[in-house]
Amino acid sequence: MQTLNNEATTDQTKKYSLIDTDIHERVMYEDLFPYLGQPWRRYIEDCHWQQEKHMPFTQPAVAGVDRADAKTPDGKPAGTSLPFMQEQLLDANNHEFGILTGALDPSPSSMHGWYEMATALASAYNDWQINEWLDKDSRLYGSVHIAAQEVANAVKEIERVGSHPKMIQVLLPIDDIAWGDPYYHPIFEAAERHDLMIGMHHNEPPAPLGKWPRYFIEWHSLIATSHMAQITSMIFNGVFEKYPNLKLMMIEGGFTYVPFLMKKLDQQFKDLRHEVPWVTTMPSDTIKNRMAFTTQPLEEMSKKEWNLLVEQMGTDEIICFSTDYPHWDYDSPDEAMPKGLEDDVLERIYGENARKFYPKLPARGDV
Amino acid sequence: MQTLNNEATTDQTKKYSLIDTDIHERVMYEDLFPYLGQPWRRYIEDCHWQQEKHMPFTQPAVAGVDRADAKTPDGKPAGTSLPFMQEQLLDANNHEFGILTGALDPSPSSMHGWYEMATALASAYNDWQINEWLDKDSRLYGSVHIAAQEVANAVKEIERVGSHPKMIQVLLPIDDIAWGDPYYHPIFEAAERHDLMIGMHHNEPPAPLGKWPRYFIEWHSLIATSHMAQITSMIFNGVFEKYPNLKLMMIEGGFTYVPFLMKKLDQQFKDLRHEVPWVTTMPSDTIKNRMAFTTQPLEEMSKKEWNLLVEQMGTDEIICFSTDYPHWDYDSPDEAMPKGLEDDVLERIYGENARKFYPKLPARGDV
Repeated sequence: MQTLNNEATTDQTKKYSLIDTDIHERVMYEDLFPYLGQPWRRYIEDCHWQQEKHMPFTQPAVAGVDRADAKTPDGKPAGTSLPFMQEQLLDANNHEFGILTGALDPSPSSMHGWYEMATALASAYNDWQINEWLDKDSRLYGSVHIAAQEVANAVKEIERVGSHPKMIQVLLPIDDIAWGDPYYHPIFEAAERHDLMIGMHHNEPPAPLGKWPRYFIEWHSLIATSHMAQITSMIFNGVFEKYPNLKLMMIEGGFTYVPFLMKKLDQQFKDLRHEVPWVTTMPSDTIKNRMAFTTQPLEEMSKKEWNLLVEQMGTDEIICFSTDYPHWDYDSPDEAMPKGLEDDVLERIYGENARKFYPKLPARGDV
Repeated sequence: MQTLNNEATTDQTKKYSLIDTDIHERVMYEDLFPYLGQPWRRYIEDCHWQQEKHMPFTQPAVAGVDRADAKTPDGKPAGTSLPFMQEQLLDANNHEFGILTGALDPSPSSMHGWYEMATALASAYNDWQINEWLDKDSRLYGSVHIAAQEVANAVKEIERVGSHPKMIQVLLPIDDIAWGDPYYHPIFEAAERHDLMIGMHHNEPPAPLGKWPRYFIEWHSLIATSHMAQITSMIFNGVFEKYPNLKLMMIEGGFTYVPFLMKKLDQQFKDLRHEVPWVTTMPSDTIKNRMAFTTQPLEEMSKKEWNLLVEQMGTDEIICFSTDYPHWDYDSPDEAMPKGLEDDVLERIYGENARKFYPKLPARGDV
């Protein structure tokens, strides 16, 4: 672990062990070349292949999707440089650990064709991630990328890199696949075998009502609804009964929708459980015991508002702090949380809930 | 107003004026024939045309989508008989008023082609509704059905029947159209001209993630997410600034998602309002002042849980009781509400909020 040079800071939040559950490292296609065999490499190098993109919006923040100040000193896109991320994020905030969740591109499981290319990209990405990030900074933990459409190959990829000590979850994009479908269950089985959790992050979720809305603000407001759909799919397809050690981290959807969803799913389960007899646990208990939620984008709120939400959920142990670095709506550890929360609460949110969630993270003081 | 024969009942809820904001009357196609000109009638009569249906689920409740005991005495589908509905619903519960919202079929605005047929069906439906229901029971108020895809014709239909004293809202289905789109604004303009509110009710909203989920329980759990999408669309497309007297009733989506949505939209508005400069009001204020929500399906909850939700919303004046008669998950006025709520709260929820919302409903004691 490298020496931290800001231990003398008096920032209040630095007394907590900070585990940041959503950091977006980004690859440039050319950086994947050393890890990408032929013929795949030539499609990028010679044919200028890029992953399909559908979102029609110009990102409305001034600097696009990223913090303006996160562009690297040599002018490359935010998230592409480990040293710059170390300086701007990990050292500055005194991170104990950070979990890499990738950028939108490539997102192999979101490709709507050419699954062999998707499989090759996933492998190259994992090798790049391990060599360029995970093996170079003891604070960073990673996500196994797969091309889930090809389940057998996805399982092979999990077998190939899932035992790396710094890989702690399998990443699935939230897009147009409902992951509870039994077709994908071998992925969960393989994840469970390697003590990997499932992390889910939206990529370009199909627009609400099946079409793109007119404005980015509409789309961005409704991201959480695609998270709700995945939780509902995973629960009622019986994934958590079938894989008793599997847990699900919902990334970058916030958590303020969880009280509503718990109540809704419990009531529907009481009314309609005869349709899904393989589900034996109340949905709110499954959410409490088998899921967690990264905080960003955390709405500004008072301590009282925070406590109401926790009272409705019945626990605060499913909330894990995240910055979403380097995106435009980055949540600073010093600013994002409501003021006045108790020490033990902050200790859980900033780090201990995530440590408990991911079995491959070192115990406290174990590093 | 007909004589009520159950005034002597001691049921607690009967002391409140009950305005039921969601009652599903149902038409049999042949009942539309007297109101449907040619060539439209012959497509049904001779060609057995039926509106397209997509939902793949067998309704899992024992009697299908309806209460088993709501089938009419002569064996017709639930909701088709005024006398039977009077007996089973209006008289039994001592309804002061009930608002008809139609059944799923026909849902002219949901048709994906042949808009002229949709327009003809909407007109026939309105005439049938007026003649067979609204003019025959003083307690019943109605919804103007339109084929919104053909905006000019939809406006004509609003002009044609919108001034009927018992028509109180224009009904729009929640399906795959985001109603905030300016293309549809002439409908809101026409509604406003006739003191009609907008009522929105899901028909077959496109499945979350753009596909049908595997089970009815998933689809049913996620209905509220399609309501959230419409509210978001209406707010950020500036409908409420443009039509200052227009209000929106969200029907059969419940209201327990509203605290989440208020907080989410307010934060997004703070962050991204530069994209939608025509929006000048905080979304939560628009929700509080320009929308209301019918209660059904109301999750079972304690008084304390109810009060937490009201505290988060900052008001209980946007909640309007509904039974959703005759659907399988009907909410009885005697059973659905949390126990122990104060008299003034119940008075608002059971009737006064709806009376305030719909300007064409008679004032209290005015009938």
